[in-house]
Amino acid sequence: MSDRIIKPGCPAGVRDLLPQQAAQRQDIVAKVIGVYEMFGFVPLETSMLEREEVLTGGDPEFSKQIFRIKDPSKNRDPLALRFDLTVPLARVVAQYPELPKPFKRWQMGRVFRGEKPQAGRYREFAQLDADTVGSPSLLADVEIINMIYLVMRRLSVVKFMVRVNTRKILNALPYYAGFDPTKVTSVLRTLDKLDKIGLDGVRKELMTEPVNEWDESPGLSADVVGKLVDFINIRGDNQEIQSQLSELMGDVPEAAAGLRELQEIVRGVEAAGVDPQRWTLDLSVARGLGYYTGPVFETLLTDLPEFGSVFSGGRFDGLVSRFSRQSIPATGASVGVDRLFTAMEKLGLLSDQAVVRPEVVVICPEDSLRFEGVKAAAELRSQGLRTELYMGTETSIGGQLGYAAKRGAQFAVIIGLEEFAANQVAIKNLLTRKQERVDRKQMCANIRGI
Amino acid sequence: MSDRIIKPGCPAGVRDLLPQQAAQRQDIVAKVIGVYEMFGFVPLETSMLEREEVLTGGDPEFSKQIFRIKDPSKNRDPLALRFDLTVPLARVVAQYPELPKPFKRWQMGRVFRGEKPQAGRYREFAQLDADTVGSPSLLADVEIINMIYLVMRRLSVVKFMVRVNTRKILNALPYYAGFDPTKVTSVLRTLDKLDKIGLDGVRKELMTEPVNEWDESPGLSADVVGKLVDFINIRGDNQEIQSQLSELMGDVPEAAAGLRELQEIVRGVEAAGVDPQRWTLDLSVARGLGYYTGPVFETLLTDLPEFGSVFSGGRFDGLVSRFSRQSIPATGASVGVDRLFTAMEKLGLLSDQAVVRPEVVVICPEDSLRFEGVKAAAELRSQGLRTELYMGTETSIGGQLGYAAKRGAQFAVIIGLEEFAANQVAIKNLLTRKQERVDRKQMCANIRGI
Repeated sequence: MSDRIIKPGCPAGVRDLLPQQAAQRQDIVAKVIGVYEMFGFVPLETSMLEREEVLTGGDPEFSKQIFRIKDPSKNRDPLALRFDLTVPLARVVAQYPELPKPFKRWQMGRVFRGEKPQAGRYREFAQLDADTVGSPSLLADVEIINMIYLVMRRLSVVKFMVRVNTRKILNALPYYAGFDPTKVTSVLRTLDKLDKIGLDGVRKELMTEPVNEWDESPGLSADVVGKLVDFINIRGDNQEIQSQLSELMGDVPEAAAGLRELQEIVRGVEAAGVDPQRWTLDLSVARGLGYYTGPVFETLLTDLPEFGSVFSGGRFDGLVSRFSRQSIPATGASVGVDRLFTAMEKLGLLSDQAVVRPEVVVICPEDSLRFEGVKAAAELRSQGLRTELYMGTETSIGGQLGYAAKRGAQFAVIIGLEEFAANQVAIKNLLTRKQERVDRKQMCANIRGI
Repeated sequence: MSDRIIKPGCPAGVRDLLPQQAAQRQDIVAKVIGVYEMFGFVPLETSMLEREEVLTGGDPEFSKQIFRIKDPSKNRDPLALRFDLTVPLARVVAQYPELPKPFKRWQMGRVFRGEKPQAGRYREFAQLDADTVGSPSLLADVEIINMIYLVMRRLSVVKFMVRVNTRKILNALPYYAGFDPTKVTSVLRTLDKLDKIGLDGVRKELMTEPVNEWDESPGLSADVVGKLVDFINIRGDNQEIQSQLSELMGDVPEAAAGLRELQEIVRGVEAAGVDPQRWTLDLSVARGLGYYTGPVFETLLTDLPEFGSVFSGGRFDGLVSRFSRQSIPATGASVGVDRLFTAMEKLGLLSDQAVVRPEVVVICPEDSLRFEGVKAAAELRSQGLRTELYMGTETSIGGQLGYAAKRGAQFAVIIGLEEFAANQVAIKNLLTRKQERVDRKQMCANIRGI
């Protein structure tokens, strides 16, 4: 060890949670898990380290976005840090075919993104996922939407909107509007800029001709662009969106499955009793991750739209087949725990009762009586009272009582020379500031109020 | 994504926990945290990623044992994965001087060791630590020992032994026996082999002369070795160990602090009421980590000594000063959660009640009634009943009931065409196998047994 002082600081793009915050975050996590369990999800734990090819699926492009590991043991199977909990789930489902289906699992854990650190973008953050594997039924997606709604309610977040779409509609756009299906990703990327660059900007970008073969500019005709504009102009409540969509795409065979999905979801979510003010179909929702194949969901906070989605997911029917000849359908969603925590902090929605406080602090200002303090603390704990023994550097009773008050304890037990000689202790109620002497034998009963 | 099937498998040196195991491990964690809270510890969360120099203290030798990160954002501050929770704690204490002292924090998290994967050695595993920072008092160490004892009891582990020593005695050995203090590490390494190579082997190794300047063979004289053998022959109960040690080292000034520490610990742990059958002084305990400065603790399972320590720690008064001009004393201990879990699994001590099961599974074999199932499940949950809606691929009622039974649910609610027409549901008690039809409105009340 060198004698140089190392600057204490966590890396850019991560966050320390001090006790109050850590307890508040744990409170959120416990509530989310409570709702997940209400739906029948069971826990799973996997490692943060995965074999690199598990994460990338063999796509070298992808490995630029993940943290790879310099393995000192020079193992030949390169390791990397997981970037979500969905790919590890697909790995587990393929690896343990004995798991009963449908397999409904929740999982909480840190994930890592090899991004440039920037405001609001964490490089390490926790996700809390619930996924149903082995159900092709859209009721599984309906249950996920209902669960997202109930989680937000459980967290006392009132102002939010769950937005639902299906990839199957987006994937039908080339057949509806008439453009090359290989261009669908770049077209969607442009449509996604509507809020930023406006309708004219979108129109212009869609018509831009590519300047070379690597340029992904769509270069669409005015006719095609007109049809896409009709699509993004679809507005209204869920019924209106469906009927306008049917009008536009009703005769496009490739869109039929997507139209049926939206209809089934609307009927299901209504049956589940989700407040119609808190969810909506939204044809602009695409979700970035490449593995989604059907319904996609995201959750925006009405008062903090700039935070983006705090609870997102979708159906990923093709992901397990990366690891298995079997194709197994799956759908689910994930809370971005750290983003949600930061948002709730900003909105003043965190519980300040979250930290577990000691009920009693035992104070023994006389060094000669220190083992009496140890004994008293042990006895109080054996009676189920959360008890801290003061062991700091304050020597005065006042200083030690100050610590007890700062820790939020309701009682201080004081063992001084006089009390000890009389076989008594002093008990101070730190809320009422009342102090009394009681027989040492009555200490626990007195604090328990018996 | 390529079309090649990627072999599903986790990396060597880590472990997946399927639902039953994950729930059992979470049960252990919750119980340990419960005891920590009983002692007044509060939570802290830090990232897995740390700046490399935080972990190594600038020692390049050390960086061979940690996982370093290939950072795609090419940040100039190299990152690595933490190898314990103690160094990050020291960093936090230096970084946030406003934290009130004593600062008693617990923390749970994965840590990473860049070792060669081998049986029983994990490369990624969870630790669950409790540390008291800012107390120079040995009562803080006494409380940690008491807490280790109570944690093991809380986990229903009966056969264990907490072994306690202090580094201050080991660091006094050169002055007692008469050898160069720079040789103390290699001498301790040899003494540690007593069980493996026997007393004669230890004697021989201690006397081996170094063949060159890099050879760390101690090359001690017969006289010095004789004194060390007297030391490692010390046996008996805590009183006997202390009196034999006083006889040998009583007049060595460098040993005085260590002798006082042992005496204080024995008096304190006795006052706390720890069962004398479950803890002992043991002068052979050294603990590997370099940062310990005073008392050290470890916990062996009587029936699985080959597992090594499952709950270890010690005092590390110098660690915070790596990050700060201030010297802040600290002591604590850490449960090796995965090692303890595997040991308890082997000893048959895991709770099989740990997985939260659904209370009700709703079954709707008729596709036309599927939204009635959604409604019923939502209603049952709103009444606080953990409810799963069957969404699998089994089409027969028998197959769906089989799933409900496998999931451990007590009730199945069946909504068939006949029941629906009569505004009823069938409720099957999967334990008694009794089935009855009740009015749809009575569904929840009937299951609640009202």
